[in-house]
Amino acid sequence: MSAPKKVVLAYSGGLDTSIILKWLQTEYGCEVVTFTADLGQGEELEPARKKAEMLGIKPENIYIEDVREEFVRDFVFPMFRANALYEGEYLLGTSIARPLISKRLVEIAEATGADAVAHGATGKGNDQVRFELSAYALNPDIKVIAPWRIWDLSSRTKLIDFAEKNQIPIAKNKRGEAPFSVDANLLHTSSEGRVLENPAEEAPDYVLQRTVPVEQAPNEPEYIEVTFEKGDAVAVNGEAMSPATLLTKLNELGGKHGIGVLDLVENRFVGMKSRGIYETPGGTILLAAHRGIEQITLDSGAGHLKDSLMPRYAELIYNGFWFSPEREMLQAAIDKSQEHVSGTVRLKLYKGAAHTVGRWSEASLYSEKHVTFEDDAGAYDQKDAAGFIQLNALRLKLLAARNRRLK
Amino acid sequence: MSAPKKVVLAYSGGLDTSIILKWLQTEYGCEVVTFTADLGQGEELEPARKKAEMLGIKPENIYIEDVREEFVRDFVFPMFRANALYEGEYLLGTSIARPLISKRLVEIAEATGADAVAHGATGKGNDQVRFELSAYALNPDIKVIAPWRIWDLSSRTKLIDFAEKNQIPIAKNKRGEAPFSVDANLLHTSSEGRVLENPAEEAPDYVLQRTVPVEQAPNEPEYIEVTFEKGDAVAVNGEAMSPATLLTKLNELGGKHGIGVLDLVENRFVGMKSRGIYETPGGTILLAAHRGIEQITLDSGAGHLKDSLMPRYAELIYNGFWFSPEREMLQAAIDKSQEHVSGTVRLKLYKGAAHTVGRWSEASLYSEKHVTFEDDAGAYDQKDAAGFIQLNALRLKLLAARNRRLK
Amino acid sequence: MSAPKKVVLAYSGGLDTSIILKWLQTEYGCEVVTFTADLGQGEELEPARKKAEMLGIKPENIYIEDVREEFVRDFVFPMFRANALYEGEYLLGTSIARPLISKRLVEIAEATGADAVAHGATGKGNDQVRFELSAYALNPDIKVIAPWRIWDLSSRTKLIDFAEKNQIPIAKNKRGEAPFSVDANLLHTSSEGRVLENPAEEAPDYVLQRTVPVEQAPNEPEYIEVTFEKGDAVAVNGEAMSPATLLTKLNELGGKHGIGVLDLVENRFVGMKSRGIYETPGGTILLAAHRGIEQITLDSGAGHLKDSLMPRYAELIYNGFWFSPEREMLQAAIDKSQEHVSGTVRLKLYKGAAHTVGRWSEASLYSEKHVTFEDDAGAYDQKDAAGFIQLNALRLKLLAARNRRLK
Amino acid sequence: MSAPKKVVLAYSGGLDTSIILKWLQTEYGCEVVTFTADLGQGEELEPARKKAEMLGIKPENIYIEDVREEFVRDFVFPMFRANALYEGEYLLGTSIARPLISKRLVEIAEATGADAVAHGATGKGNDQVRFELSAYALNPDIKVIAPWRIWDLSSRTKLIDFAEKNQIPIAKNKRGEAPFSVDANLLHTSSEGRVLENPAEEAPDYVLQRTVPVEQAPNEPEYIEVTFEKGDAVAVNGEAMSPATLLTKLNELGGKHGIGVLDLVENRFVGMKSRGIYETPGGTILLAAHRGIEQITLDSGAGHLKDSLMPRYAELIYNGFWFSPEREMLQAAIDKSQEHVSGTVRLKLYKGAAHTVGRWSEASLYSEKHVTFEDDAGAYDQKDAAGFIQLNALRLKLLAARNRRLK
Repeated sequence: MSAPKKVVLAYSGGLDTSIILKWLQTEYGCEVVTFTADLGQGEELEPARKKAEMLGIKPENIYIEDVREEFVRDFVFPMFRANALYEGEYLLGTSIARPLISKRLVEIAEATGADAVAHGATGKGNDQVRFELSAYALNPDIKVIAPWRIWDLSSRTKLIDFAEKNQIPIAKNKRGEAPFSVDANLLHTSSEGRVLENPAEEAPDYVLQRTVPVEQAPNEPEYIEVTFEKGDAVAVNGEAMSPATLLTKLNELGGKHGIGVLDLVENRFVGMKSRGIYETPGGTILLAAHRGIEQITLDSGAGHLKDSLMPRYAELIYNGFWFSPEREMLQAAIDKSQEHVSGTVRLKLYKGAAHTVGRWSEASLYSEKHVTFEDDAGAYDQKDAAGFIQLNALRLKLLAARNRRLK
Repeated sequence: MSAPKKVVLAYSGGLDTSIILKWLQTEYGCEVVTFTADLGQGEELEPARKKAEMLGIKPENIYIEDVREEFVRDFVFPMFRANALYEGEYLLGTSIARPLISKRLVEIAEATGADAVAHGATGKGNDQVRFELSAYALNPDIKVIAPWRIWDLSSRTKLIDFAEKNQIPIAKNKRGEAPFSVDANLLHTSSEGRVLENPAEEAPDYVLQRTVPVEQAPNEPEYIEVTFEKGDAVAVNGEAMSPATLLTKLNELGGKHGIGVLDLVENRFVGMKSRGIYETPGGTILLAAHRGIEQITLDSGAGHLKDSLMPRYAELIYNGFWFSPEREMLQAAIDKSQEHVSGTVRLKLYKGAAHTVGRWSEASLYSEKHVTFEDDAGAYDQKDAAGFIQLNALRLKLLAARNRRLK
Repeated sequence: MSAPKKVVLAYSGGLDTSIILKWLQTEYGCEVVTFTADLGQGEELEPARKKAEMLGIKPENIYIEDVREEFVRDFVFPMFRANALYEGEYLLGTSIARPLISKRLVEIAEATGADAVAHGATGKGNDQVRFELSAYALNPDIKVIAPWRIWDLSSRTKLIDFAEKNQIPIAKNKRGEAPFSVDANLLHTSSEGRVLENPAEEAPDYVLQRTVPVEQAPNEPEYIEVTFEKGDAVAVNGEAMSPATLLTKLNELGGKHGIGVLDLVENRFVGMKSRGIYETPGGTILLAAHRGIEQITLDSGAGHLKDSLMPRYAELIYNGFWFSPEREMLQAAIDKSQEHVSGTVRLKLYKGAAHTVGRWSEASLYSEKHVTFEDDAGAYDQKDAAGFIQLNALRLKLLAARNRRLK
Repeated sequence: MSAPKKVVLAYSGGLDTSIILKWLQTEYGCEVVTFTADLGQGEELEPARKKAEMLGIKPENIYIEDVREEFVRDFVFPMFRANALYEGEYLLGTSIARPLISKRLVEIAEATGADAVAHGATGKGNDQVRFELSAYALNPDIKVIAPWRIWDLSSRTKLIDFAEKNQIPIAKNKRGEAPFSVDANLLHTSSEGRVLENPAEEAPDYVLQRTVPVEQAPNEPEYIEVTFEKGDAVAVNGEAMSPATLLTKLNELGGKHGIGVLDLVENRFVGMKSRGIYETPGGTILLAAHRGIEQITLDSGAGHLKDSLMPRYAELIYNGFWFSPEREMLQAAIDKSQEHVSGTVRLKLYKGAAHTVGRWSEASLYSEKHVTFEDDAGAYDQKDAAGFIQLNALRLKLLAARNRRLK
């Protein structure tokens, strides 16, 4: 790979990406464009602008954007239509944010004439894969620079040295190692590393960033209603909200009740197992609610097909293949199923859990007339079941007869 | 179908199956053999013997058996190896008990020279299918009699009339309709019908049979440890237990903490949606624990394959195809994966939830050496990731280049 | 089911459906509407009109339609986008025609105020299921009458008697049993029953309806080119054709070369195995050609997903679930993949086989630059493969180390 | 990676692997052990011994083995139980041989105290992946050396120079580039590269190594019978044969009739498309025969599950994951299905195709009694079909009613 001339960097304003910024300038002598996104991580963005300017970035090369609505509308919600869970439990909060960042990096590169993009993910994790596959899928000619795989700043001491030599300001609490590493966006917070590395030991409560420890959650349950249209949540307690506003609201509710904390050992795409503590308060409520509304509005054929496709869909997102034809094919199938997934779900939030306790819809397929224990006025002829069973049994009978014959 | 000469009836000793018993005698003039099983439903069995005798069943035709160990060992545990959930949520507590009952019915028929078996499931539900497919798969020549699909005792009044005319004793609380219908075994209790038929309305607490309402659960968490060998739980808190004993213990723990209550609208195999309240206290803990131990002992290739097969496996059990070649094929695959699923999981039980908070194993695949944020002493070469990403990206780049070319 | 008042009958004009027509009139005293479709079965339709009139059908109740273009465009082509094969071999020629017939039956019922539709399929086969599931999926209130499951005309003698008593003309060769039963449409001919019932015996050449016995096919190969746009064939040998014209042309070519004859024992949805001889000359060429163009225009991620979904898709069509949400979901996924499946395939037709021998496309993803054994000018860095393999191997190494440790 | 001390090389005796042998000696100063296997590629092995000796390999370090029976019994036959086809068409002839070679390389390394193995596959292909994943899965500490990814002998001229400088004898026809590259074993021959690189151009007949061009195949068909036991072929025309003998026999028959030639553009695991000409004469017959015997002995539930698992199974083998837990899980499922896949298939071989024309078995599930068009003596009650259809239709009716209601 020839040296890049102009690089768009995913820039948080923090110490690590500031070091990367400076390293790119010194290593390649290239122009750097910074992209700082508000994905709902809960940090102010303007300090990043000041810091970028201080590090010599031209004002026109500083991109700071609030992408929360796009994030929820075009990434989180499509994923929730699938009820996606990686390895049965993980709501994919980190995975789903990466493609959006790469998309904007590539778009900004094209707008500014940059030939490369850069990110701050390490060589051991999934995020490098997600950033880079997304970038290459959107622009096959882009260069992607991953300094952590290249430089020799392999210890905290070396990083701090580099920062000091290059006049990068270092916050006091950044001199030493953090006790664990955090990633956050509007969907979730993940914490991993160091004090969490031993999967036998319970994670301490102080790891939690946006959720109260469940013992401190209110002693009274709270009931809420979430309304869906075509598979997407559109209102909470009857109040219509934009996607990001709605997820923010669910996060508040979930966080207050200690909902959505997960201690998981998962399989990374790069081949190792890792342990993380995930907080997805609003997403956990949303998943329960979406399953609840599907229960009455989705046909079993559609639902079972969705369930069988889901693990592959989730794996694709986890592995970084959001912008792949197979994810888009699965999305087309999933979206097709959501046309009538509309209605309202009532949930009880209490002590770490969100339980569906009621659901109703104009589009309901639930037929009390059919299911009733009372007289069904001929809606269902129980004698049909005899034929249904006989023909389902036929092959089993032929098998049993054959197997007996051969004994 | 010609009239049966001798019928083995799945007999609970309750009013409904007593009516069936008498109806079989009067309708077909046939000899009746009763089979009453202790599946952990929590009822005494000896009263069933007395009642059968009173209804004229010969002592040698009364079979009363404790099948709890067989139930957990040969049905529940194999199913939990798969982490089976029907429609994402249901632990299949009713479904998994039916094949065992049918197996014993058929075996007793063969032992007693009976040509038919009979069950008390209605024509609207799944249980009729499960009973009958199992019976036919085990004996292709057996007749199966489902009185609810045949007789005209279609109302409570008619049933009570029939009972009175035939001197069948009627407990006072059985004269009217029950407010809901209950099925129970060692794995779970299900409640459905009548007061639960409107899926919009929250189920009342009095429905709960074996779980305390979550608000009444202890305010202090309880920690437990579950130990696995080859995918099956073998000890709780270090104490080795037989399968049924272990599940009984987990039920106690789960019931006390209000764990495993599910309000679900599901799709029946016969084509309608129904709403049920399921209590699976011990099973819910067991699923969490099994997932926890798999997290560190199961390879991702095996785990992802399991996850992708699971929906089909669960559907087969739900639909009554336990004794089908495809369920056995899936079981062979699943069992193959469990050879090293051994170790211990620590769980926190609190207010309706069981959370894995730690796991350890001799057979762990978790490698702190690889995953560490610290110096890994060369265990993992971050530069490998560059090649890994490049080749995973190659097809996406070729696609992107093609699509750009065609624009 | 109450008696129908007005019935739309799928009417071929042959003896069997004429008997059904009369039977409907006499059994129910109802008005009959006939629907006769040209699906490319190779029979003239006007005689059906005369016969219907003779049997007392009012002219406005006689519907005769050429639906060949709709058949190929809206049913055959979407199915071929999936490369659908039932049980690895069957091109679903009968299955795919049924939903179209039911769709028109239901539409005509709605247009004429009929409350029922009727078909001439027996109670042992798949076609009854396909007709009826399609009808119910399109109109949940329609009645479907399947006389073969109802009447007592269970032998040839009884049928002939009924015909004679009701002045239904009987062609000489229809008095006795046909040596086998035939179904045909533009996609295929199927033959089954009687002389074909023993699956151990080779089918005689005289069974073939539209294909020359392969020994009599030309001794010289013939080369053709089939051009695709977005997954559908649009031209043969450079000549643009409508869907039905194109399939007719491929049938001619395939028939001449003895292509697409299949001797199959398959599993019917109703639980038994049956043996059929299928001729799909044009379809067999089309499948080979479609696979050929996908080879260079479809990405591996998309292609492998398609391959894994195909068996389920084919099973749905075979079982009669064309108008089901899950088939539509799969179709959405499949269609999504076909956007760039455009280009031309060269095939060699010879002695029963159609072999792809060349393919080219503007949208090709084949990159000679990458694959070449010669110097690739840096298009591909072979060193990337080392990292790719290392990370793919990591979990296998961890497994092997664990397994060795435990030995 | 530290330098290897002792390397086991997959050695063919040809020019390329002789260069590798010498390069290993000179590059690393290490001891070399050669492994030359008879996999049925049709070359004598003793010349490889002489050449190895000439290149300075100690006699005790020269391993020459006939592994044909192991190859067919433990690799080819298990794969054929699955009816494996990669991308719908490729019989995986090259893929399936690699794990066996790696297995022996690792075993010999362990027996001789070698710390590394080496192979002659290039950095662009699949074989490097297959060799290396297999090796690492069997010995996590082994080093694998892939000289083609390391050295700078990147042109034919440089290779020949190296050979000349190192006194490696060069056959006359090896001085220039071969017009295409060939890999062969008992299952197949693959040809690719150079004259075959343009996928639009038909492959010339001279590419064929073991199959007559179809026009030159006999003008008379030949009928054969293949007998199976538990899913594996055990006899041809009634004559019992060992696995390798049987495949050799089928190769003769297939080669003579021009059977099993495939022109394919496929997707390599490393991300590019490549074009190959594959000859699998015996394997093509074997696949047809295996499908034929499954048609009558395999239940539809088992068969459909197999079909749905097959694409993933084939992809695993293609990608080099033979020794992975997920391949072993799938194998367990597949093998479970084969217990009664026993019986005989009659095939017609003619002009490039093998067609099943008859099949019979003690274990047949085909029931003429059920399927017959004649009176079935009550084996099947056609009225059962009505109930079967009604309950299969119920959800579709509820859907249609809902959708009409919402319009």
